[in-house]
Amino acid sequence: MEPIHTNILKHINKVIELSEDEKQEFVSILEERKVSKKDFLIQPGDFVDSEYYVVSGCLEAYYLDESGNPHIIQFAVEDWWISDFEAFFNETSAKLHVVCIEDSLLLGINKAALEILYKRIPKFERFFRIKTTSAFVALRSRVLSTLQKSSKDRYIEFCETYPNIEKRVTNYSIANYLGIKPESLSRIRKASR
Amino acid sequence: MEPIHTNILKHINKVIELSEDEKQEFVSILEERKVSKKDFLIQPGDFVDSEYYVVSGCLEAYYLDESGNPHIIQFAVEDWWISDFEAFFNETSAKLHVVCIEDSLLLGINKAALEILYKRIPKFERFFRIKTTSAFVALRSRVLSTLQKSSKDRYIEFCETYPNIEKRVTNYSIANYLGIKPESLSRIRKASR
Repeated sequence: MEPIHTNILKHINKVIELSEDEKQEFVSILEERKVSKKDFLIQPGDFVDSEYYVVSGCLEAYYLDESGNPHIIQFAVEDWWISDFEAFFNETSAKLHVVCIEDSLLLGINKAALEILYKRIPKFERFFRIKTTSAFVALRSRVLSTLQKSSKDRYIEFCETYPNIEKRVTNYSIANYLGIKPESLSRIRKASR
Repeated sequence: MEPIHTNILKHINKVIELSEDEKQEFVSILEERKVSKKDFLIQPGDFVDSEYYVVSGCLEAYYLDESGNPHIIQFAVEDWWISDFEAFFNETSAKLHVVCIEDSLLLGINKAALEILYKRIPKFERFFRIKTTSAFVALRSRVLSTLQKSSKDRYIEFCETYPNIEKRVTNYSIANYLGIKPESLSRIRKASR
């Protein structure tokens, strides 16, 4: 097995057990993708045929509204998945920008290859069911936090969800993600040091 | 097959194909549950061991914040699923209220029975993977709508997502779900007639 596949196999092994042959078959469909800092992985209008596992690096996904204001919907660092999931799942064109904020090494899974994998190794249905349920529950909990938690509590929750990311992305990005003003975030960060 | 199972089997058949034996096995784990208007299906602190398919009726799930203000996170009508999914999936105690706003007939699936079902009929992993992905994508799209669409566009989107529900729930509930003032919603509804 190549070293580049070590982490994704560990990541999968936390949920389902794979034989050596199944591991080989799985890694054979992965597509290595290097993207430089500031480059876009996905842009609005793109046809999105892959979702991506982050081996190393840091990315953000955002929506640019009609007035040109970005709204960050997701960050991804090592061991996370990223894509324009709506476009990927519904086979519609992308609405989001996904940009690398550090040089990033990704493993892409193509949708057609994934469908074949589901047929050949149905355990992957279980793996992605559990990962997606977990993402769904986390997103619901984020919606609830926005409705009722203080900015400070949401910043703390953010630091728990994305450990160490606060040093890798800008103050502006975190504030945008949390839906608060950059000045408010600076105050919260100073007070919690 | 009992008439009460007709709709849920149709609902599943849209995604996976089941043999007659598999249908029998599936319906054997369903628990019929009748809940009267205004009664709670789930309350904060409850241990949530089931998720529910709505055969008939209408429910809403909301979070009550520290000041006693409700924040509606989901409605469910015929052919939808409802629960406190975070509590159900993470095996934590409920944070949400789930209340019936009409007399409702539900089919509950218990988590332990579902895990056995996954082992015996792995196609259900696929069914719930696809349903959950679709819920995840819909929730992400709702988060994006909140960030950038006008109240009017969000009301239109709501009517598309929950067809005919606007006649079954109060103006107050819809406004709460959309995060706008009831007066604003009344204006939008008058203007769109």
